[in-house]
Amino acid sequence: MTTDANAAREQGLDLMPRFDANGLITAVVTDVASGDLLMVAHMNDEALKRTIASGDAWYWSRSRSELWRKGATSGHTQKVVELRIDCDQDAVWLKVEQRGPACHTGERSCFYRAVRSPEGNLVRV
Amino acid sequence: MTTDANAAREQGLDLMPRFDANGLITAVVTDVASGDLLMVAHMNDEALKRTIASGDAWYWSRSRSELWRKGATSGHTQKVVELRIDCDQDAVWLKVEQRGPACHTGERSCFYRAVRSPEGNLVRV
Repeated sequence: MTTDANAAREQGLDLMPRFDANGLITAVVTDVASGDLLMVAHMNDEALKRTIASGDAWYWSRSRSELWRKGATSGHTQKVVELRIDCDQDAVWLKVEQRGPACHTGERSCFYRAVRSPEGNLVRV
Repeated sequence: MTTDANAAREQGLDLMPRFDANGLITAVVTDVASGDLLMVAHMNDEALKRTIASGDAWYWSRSRSELWRKGATSGHTQKVVELRIDCDQDAVWLKVEQRGPACHTGERSCFYRAVRSPEGNLVRV
């Protein structure tokens, strides 16, 4: 890619998502009320388009190889309040109103453990 | 992987990072003071180990194919206050004390633009 194209992607006001070799970008999801990180997921072009068009969070499931609307089966939907994109447009930040837990384990956030020692032991937080 | 191994990874207190085909996990970095999302980067095993051991944020640069300590050349270092890992251990959350801007563009956060219309136009925020 030329320097001009890089500059347009970084400084311009056109949405030009940079999908990886698998056609995906990273989606970082935070709770608009608490600011906490809820989960990290992935979007393909269609998931991104549906999210923008509907205001509901759509992702691409790498394990199931399918498009899914978050909460379609669990009811734990995400209403997107703000959608941001990063400098090189390979990651998006969704601030959401989370209904119920965001994690499939039933935890509010997927990030329920912290590393607390140099040996790498985890603690629940 | 067996169900037991999945359960250990999700519910256990051992650090068992699940690196992808390129040997990487996703690192989500927030500002411990403001809570804002600063950047998304990647870590290989060595970057994760150095981060845990030193308390400074280390990443793997996919574009340069090298290990780097954030701020080594710019001075815009990140002191890690808390390090969390997600349910399936393929993403980490770093809460950091960010010195200077986190983004190479000079912006405080890489996420300085939001999607504001169904057509996908961006606005600076």
